[in-house]
Amino acid sequence: MPQQDPFGHPRPAAHDSDGLYGPQNLPYGVFSTPDEPGRKRIGVRYGDRVLDVHTAATALGSPHADILAHPTLNPLMAAGRPTWRAVRASVATWLGYPAIEPFLHPLTEVTLHLPFEVADYADFYSSEHHATNVGRIFRPDGAPLTPNWKHLPIGYHGRAGTVVVSGTPVIRPNGQRLAGDAPVFGPTQRLDIEAEVGFVVGAPSRLGERVPLSAFREHVFGLCLLNDWSARDIQSWEYRPLGPFLGKSFATSVSAWVTPLDALDAARIPPPPRDPRPLPYLDDTAEAEPGGFDLRITVAVNGHTVAEPPFSAMYWTAAQQLAHLTSGGASLRTGDLFASGTVSGPEPHQRGCLLELTWNGRDPLDLPGGKRTYLEDGDEVTLTAWAPGPEGTRLGLGEVTGRIVPA
Amino acid sequence: MPQQDPFGHPRPAAHDSDGLYGPQNLPYGVFSTPDEPGRKRIGVRYGDRVLDVHTAATALGSPHADILAHPTLNPLMAAGRPTWRAVRASVATWLGYPAIEPFLHPLTEVTLHLPFEVADYADFYSSEHHATNVGRIFRPDGAPLTPNWKHLPIGYHGRAGTVVVSGTPVIRPNGQRLAGDAPVFGPTQRLDIEAEVGFVVGAPSRLGERVPLSAFREHVFGLCLLNDWSARDIQSWEYRPLGPFLGKSFATSVSAWVTPLDALDAARIPPPPRDPRPLPYLDDTAEAEPGGFDLRITVAVNGHTVAEPPFSAMYWTAAQQLAHLTSGGASLRTGDLFASGTVSGPEPHQRGCLLELTWNGRDPLDLPGGKRTYLEDGDEVTLTAWAPGPEGTRLGLGEVTGRIVPA
Repeated sequence: MPQQDPFGHPRPAAHDSDGLYGPQNLPYGVFSTPDEPGRKRIGVRYGDRVLDVHTAATALGSPHADILAHPTLNPLMAAGRPTWRAVRASVATWLGYPAIEPFLHPLTEVTLHLPFEVADYADFYSSEHHATNVGRIFRPDGAPLTPNWKHLPIGYHGRAGTVVVSGTPVIRPNGQRLAGDAPVFGPTQRLDIEAEVGFVVGAPSRLGERVPLSAFREHVFGLCLLNDWSARDIQSWEYRPLGPFLGKSFATSVSAWVTPLDALDAARIPPPPRDPRPLPYLDDTAEAEPGGFDLRITVAVNGHTVAEPPFSAMYWTAAQQLAHLTSGGASLRTGDLFASGTVSGPEPHQRGCLLELTWNGRDPLDLPGGKRTYLEDGDEVTLTAWAPGPEGTRLGLGEVTGRIVPA
Repeated sequence: MPQQDPFGHPRPAAHDSDGLYGPQNLPYGVFSTPDEPGRKRIGVRYGDRVLDVHTAATALGSPHADILAHPTLNPLMAAGRPTWRAVRASVATWLGYPAIEPFLHPLTEVTLHLPFEVADYADFYSSEHHATNVGRIFRPDGAPLTPNWKHLPIGYHGRAGTVVVSGTPVIRPNGQRLAGDAPVFGPTQRLDIEAEVGFVVGAPSRLGERVPLSAFREHVFGLCLLNDWSARDIQSWEYRPLGPFLGKSFATSVSAWVTPLDALDAARIPPPPRDPRPLPYLDDTAEAEPGGFDLRITVAVNGHTVAEPPFSAMYWTAAQQLAHLTSGGASLRTGDLFASGTVSGPEPHQRGCLLELTWNGRDPLDLPGGKRTYLEDGDEVTLTAWAPGPEGTRLGLGEVTGRIVPA
């Protein structure tokens, strides 16, 4: 972005300490300030600051002021892609006006909130490397992938009411786990993470209406980082035959920033080849836009990097997940969140959960503070990620962090 | 109820054609009238009529008018049990005043809507008879119940956004099903019902807070009838290892009336004995209030009764389901809906789904219009139920009906 606005005034500085939140990025969040803690407002991250976009829009007489005058992103997300593009273009323009300087708040001085009201939360299982590793760990004598795995993106519904914003403490869950022949009830002994990417639905769809691969961009507003905290001992005892329930319902953390898909054009890449070829409603070989996203994730435990999962390795894309989710006629609501499943690459240091990284506790991780199999009370897990932006830039995808507190 | 009010005036007649919706019942719903189709209002069913309770409350100067001035039950449900009891007592009193006659609308002249905004929807699997039959059908060589079944109420999350009110047409879902060795995509060939009872959460709970068995009545506002439509061929192909997803996400129908738990004191009964004794957080042997509900359900296909499942036979109670759901610290929100799972009794005519009734299609049902294994386009399924009320009365639990329309 030029250093002067169209009138020759100097632009506000981005104060972009790591270069990840420049004018090419502009993710959305919801924040409050200490003087008005109850007043949640939509913000756009610009470097190390947050632009109060409703106040700016009002001051500048923008026609978008109404849609930004809410304590969540949902009304903006519901408005549809033409509005998303228009608002994003407007915000980029406003950043050129020195007059908006008063509406920029230092990140260190605001509180970030859950940026959208979650409608339904669905979680997929779309990394072949992850699913294969899990199969090898839990079913060493059988085929690592179930027969359906390469025919459809396997998914399930999670608990929308326990999706929390980055920074929320994660209380170690109690639950039933098998001890010998009988179950006992108590704090999980195998608390794990799952490094994932979440996609946020903006424009809804009607009951009975399918969302084809080609309509992905019309419905999905943006993406966030997501940690699908998992209690492996609770999960393994409860999950037959109806799938995960309490092993994952206690907390799901999302980043405070939702990156619009419109910021990620330079990150679109072809997904890996699929064999067998998917059924027509999932076959993306003829799609105009590549289905993958080149997102580089880092997983850190207590500040120490333990994995670098590449989102580019995902077998099923978000567009395929959405086409599948709606293929039976299920409707979409604004605020629906669907996540990728654990992101794992082919290499050992690319695995997105401790189950895989420690091979279910067999191979502890050596951390500066001691060995780790599963998480201990006080541990803090942080996921970060970046994506290629236009002209060699990098875009940050926020972070999602959480510290474990005792049961 | 006496036929005169305290001032000696005649009470409005209940016009209660089948005696199921007298002053002991008073379920809540949301309705609109043809002259103002966009104005959804809270109604209380009284016989064959609906009392517009907000308008009545306003006219009578009631302190409850504000909480009834909404297009959903959620604000009333959020208010907590003392308010629920006070409002219910007030409504019963209002029915004694001839002055409310203008606020009573004939049921035949109103449209009924989804009575509450669904937050999260969880579905359990709590009939031993159902789970045993399903196990025998799908795993004839193994134990019918999984090892965890008698230790915890197995459950999973469903799709809240596709919960629809009784009367909403059900579009036959498309999906993947296995045909020989490979999957094909198309309309389900095995469309089924599941006769269930849904419990509706009013008062929320905090993240990390458990809701013990004894707090059930403080959180649960009431119950409804629920049909968890299921596509068996889609479900059986997709469900390993993460459970049901598209096989059940296309529609879940609920009755238009929510019966307050306060109406059902005479229907509380002890649940069946459990062996082994559940872990302490699920052990209800010392609870003051019996955990079961004596609800008599009827399942009709095209007007012909095909089953009469007794809710009294359920192994796990709603209080146990809620204690389990929150045992890991998951919070509750107003509008959370959790359902019992298919209600089946020990006898063949007490089975609550076609999978069991036809033994997966092996034994077709003889209906007046022809044999049925699974549902055909045009079929209409109606669940009704009643519960014992005070002094020998019967309370109707609304009905939940849906007609299948082609994919």
